Amino acid sequence: MGKFITLEGIEGVGKTSNLRYIKELLESSGHDCVVTREPGGTNLGEALRGLLLSHSDDNMSADSELLMMFAARAEHLSKVILPALENDQTVLCDRFTEATYAYQGGGRLLDVDKISELEEWVQGELRPDLTIILDAPVEIGRARAGSRSEPDRIEKEQDDFFQRVRSAYIELADHYPHRICLVDASKEFVAVQQQIQEQLVEYDILNS
Amino acid sequence: MGKFITLEGIEGVGKTSNLRYIKELLESSGHDCVVTREPGGTNLGEALRGLLLSHSDDNMSADSELLMMFAARAEHLSKVILPALENDQTVLCDRFTEATYAYQGGGRLLDVDKISELEEWVQGELRPDLTIILDAPVEIGRARAGSRSEPDRIEKEQDDFFQRVRSAYIELADHYPHRICLVDASKEFVAVQQQIQEQLVEYDILNS
Repeated sequence: MGKFITLEGIEGVGKTSNLRYIKELLESSGHDCVVTREPGGTNLGEALRGLLLSHSDDNMSADSELLMMFAARAEHLSKVILPALENDQTVLCDRFTEATYAYQGGGRLLDVDKISELEEWVQGELRPDLTIILDAPVEIGRARAGSRSEPDRIEKEQDDFFQRVRSAYIELADHYPHRICLVDASKEFVAVQQQIQEQLVEYDILNS
Repeated sequence: MGKFITLEGIEGVGKTSNLRYIKELLESSGHDCVVTREPGGTNLGEALRGLLLSHSDDNMSADSELLMMFAARAEHLSKVILPALENDQTVLCDRFTEATYAYQGGGRLLDVDKISELEEWVQGELRPDLTIILDAPVEIGRARAGSRSEPDRIEKEQDDFFQRVRSAYIELADHYPHRICLVDASKEFVAVQQQIQEQLVEYDILNS
């Protein structure tokens, strides 16, 4: 089985450019990488992503949002992630279940037990081999993200929402240190890359 | 709380016309009826119905199909069904969770325990007060339904699929006789209506 690596963090912490960096790093040491994202990664998943992030249905029920996230995830696992891992490829995914704990659990204050029931239902025993959480104060993330395009339904939430998301991410890293690590993304780009490289070695994804 | 009544059955057993008949019968005895359907019944639910029944994604993963059904259901419960019941209205719904047991459990042979976990997750203790299953041999249903429009993704399944759906419906009625009844829909329209009326009295929805 290939390695399953996920990248997490609130808006503006540098996920996109660091995803590219990780991919190059892994490929230069011989990994055959599949880069994908959640919600999405399949035709059906992208259609569900469209419904989840569209501005039109602001008051979607929280349970429904959660079930749609996991519906997209089930399709993603069955069509993209599992076939790649079984083919010895390294899967690098922009957000995964930890984002559900952070955004729906932390941000929307949904019952964490309800999330873990669905995690178990959809994933069984499967967890990422390594989850890298890019962590930075909400103000820094928002300032960096602010200059981009029109915010989507989730990005339109207020600062206290993103504070809760950030805290939930930090808690996850505390709880599962054997598979989740925190990287200080408030630093300069090169310093962030340095930390990422060290963690990939630390968690046995890259050789030292 | 108002009464929650659901109508079930394979294609061609006469759900649409009998739904209209039940509505008239209930209204003439003073019920304030809300008529709705699954999957659907809300904006989000109808969008999910579109994805579920579209021809384009024939090989959607079974888990994803199931989660989307329940995502639509969670929205339907929160936006339509529960508010109506709390408002003392009678909700009359064209298909509900019993259809998931019949189509996904019986038809697609999905693990019934996985369905009941989601039922519990989404509905808690809530079950319909009465589910009327219109039962007829598959050949009769298909012959009646066949003359209609282009079949959707699920209607395109083969006869053995619908045989399993029908058997699953019959089993549900056997298992939960206190809230699910079977009506012989192979009979003439008036005889079917007669049975439906008797069941509505039997299950204390209508006075005798």
